[in-house]
Amino acid sequence: MDSINIKDIARLCGVGVSTVSRAINNHPDINPETKNMIMQVIKENNYIPNNSARNLKRTDSRAIAVLIKGIGNPFFSKMIRIFEEEIQKKKYSFILQRVDEQEDEVDVALELIKEKKPRGIVFLGGYFSHSREELEQLTVPFVLSTIGMTEYLGESPDFSCVSVDDYAESYKMTDYLCKLGHKKILILTAPSDDESIGRLRLEGYKKALFDNGITPSPSLITFSEECEECYSMENGYRMMNRVLNEKSEFTAVYAISDSIAIGACKAIFERGMRIPEDYCMAGYDGLDIARYYNPSITTIRQPVEEMAKATIKILFDVIKNKAEHQKKVFRAELIEGESTRRVK
Amino acid sequence: MDSINIKDIARLCGVGVSTVSRAINNHPDINPETKNMIMQVIKENNYIPNNSARNLKRTDSRAIAVLIKGIGNPFFSKMIRIFEEEIQKKKYSFILQRVDEQEDEVDVALELIKEKKPRGIVFLGGYFSHSREELEQLTVPFVLSTIGMTEYLGESPDFSCVSVDDYAESYKMTDYLCKLGHKKILILTAPSDDESIGRLRLEGYKKALFDNGITPSPSLITFSEECEECYSMENGYRMMNRVLNEKSEFTAVYAISDSIAIGACKAIFERGMRIPEDYCMAGYDGLDIARYYNPSITTIRQPVEEMAKATIKILFDVIKNKAEHQKKVFRAELIEGESTRRVK
Repeated sequence: MDSINIKDIARLCGVGVSTVSRAINNHPDINPETKNMIMQVIKENNYIPNNSARNLKRTDSRAIAVLIKGIGNPFFSKMIRIFEEEIQKKKYSFILQRVDEQEDEVDVALELIKEKKPRGIVFLGGYFSHSREELEQLTVPFVLSTIGMTEYLGESPDFSCVSVDDYAESYKMTDYLCKLGHKKILILTAPSDDESIGRLRLEGYKKALFDNGITPSPSLITFSEECEECYSMENGYRMMNRVLNEKSEFTAVYAISDSIAIGACKAIFERGMRIPEDYCMAGYDGLDIARYYNPSITTIRQPVEEMAKATIKILFDVIKNKAEHQKKVFRAELIEGESTRRVK
Repeated sequence: MDSINIKDIARLCGVGVSTVSRAINNHPDINPETKNMIMQVIKENNYIPNNSARNLKRTDSRAIAVLIKGIGNPFFSKMIRIFEEEIQKKKYSFILQRVDEQEDEVDVALELIKEKKPRGIVFLGGYFSHSREELEQLTVPFVLSTIGMTEYLGESPDFSCVSVDDYAESYKMTDYLCKLGHKKILILTAPSDDESIGRLRLEGYKKALFDNGITPSPSLITFSEECEECYSMENGYRMMNRVLNEKSEFTAVYAISDSIAIGACKAIFERGMRIPEDYCMAGYDGLDIARYYNPSITTIRQPVEEMAKATIKILFDVIKNKAEHQKKVFRAELIEGESTRRVK
């Protein structure tokens, strides 16, 4: 048995994992005989408890700060979780900081650096269009993760970026719908003044239509109203109801997030219509719920785990001077669900 | 206009919110004339930017640590988000720390206190059965939030708790299914050695059956296998498939989380069966997706926002010596969805 773990010990002892945990942690709520038996089995099997409380003891007070714009976006939940895991593995602590829509993330970061002295920063979500002068004020290494950004920044060697190509992936989904025979494809997208991933996904949609000989129609572009949670199910539901009240004609809906797609589905179902028979539906993100929804939703699956891990790996490589800053663009995958079908 | 906000300014100026933000934040990427115009409108309307970057400046390095057991549980995503909001409002920073299933949260907390010196701690999720001696080692105020715990701790005045009554709420749901005429109610629950909310919800289920004259049948209690993410859709899907392969008889399924319920629904749909016609389905938590799922899921809605806010309010009241520790039990609400129906 190469890497015996706490579950193996529990099984060998015929007790639950929590009982083994109590034995290891000198917990008073355990029968002394049981404890002795467990400790004996642990010894015999050379099991070394992998306890991050112990690991913590060996660290100084190092921290990574994660600044999030759009904390309500469920896509970020999984990112945050993997960040925490990877940061804890490195024995750093994780400072979580929300950045409001109208705030400047660099300002927030500058204050954080002064107060909390993080060794590195991750910017998650939002849009980045700061000047080189501003960015040079940031005295700790940072990585932009899943952030829509202007071209000139992408070439900068002073920081790292991890993302998918939102424009290309959005093109891919729209092109897929066109190839299924759809000519009237409604897009449910971010507010019209969005300058982040919303804009990139909209541009990808327009270009794919254009390349398929379809002129993008303003009546089929539904912008979200300004709201704190544009990418939510609730907003998708609201947007779709607005469209259905207007009776514009379309055969497919492309929502720029899975949550929007699911809210939109619900609005369609509530009017007694079916998916994909009456309308096809496509989303974006590749959330677990896209697979478990009824019907499952055709989506663009971002490799969230790889992206989150790469974000932290690059950051630590730079902190430890093991590598230069880098720009990493991941490929996303179009997952065909039950929510789309070919039309004539 | 009493409380003019950045969106009002943007509308008045005929520009986007981000442009106003740039003007306020002395961003270089803005046309100077546009900026002057915006600053003029801001002045005329007595608008005061509510910028947390500015707020941060007034703080020292105070932090609240949130320790989470079961970080993969989507119910916690919203809790974390509201914690962050409330903690930021108080101008404290938010340290996020995962606690693994087999770790002792008090050990982790003790190390955190030593290293990071938080002013307060929130324990989120998991099970708390530590001795008074252990707890007395924790030298900063703490609140247990949505944690299953033993009775004797509940009476302790040395710390605060915020939760729903998992036993009573689970009783409520099971009783509801009985009153709809169901006699064979399958429960999808946590691993058999669970000593946390899983156990409380299972006990509530058994008691409700008993009170309705039904003897709980072991063949209708499906325990999860030991897994990192017991409360996930994936696990619900897996558990339900296991049950369906065994052909035990039941008319309703009660899953102890909405995510488990949704995974279970998918397994049922994949076999060509319908909900609620072939099987009824009930969940627990009141996640947004329970409402947007097709069909919507009958669930126990925990008042997540109120609970999260109360957690932070109590913690700060104690930190600032404004109040004593308190135990706060919230009432949850049974929400009838499309996934359950009366049977004969």
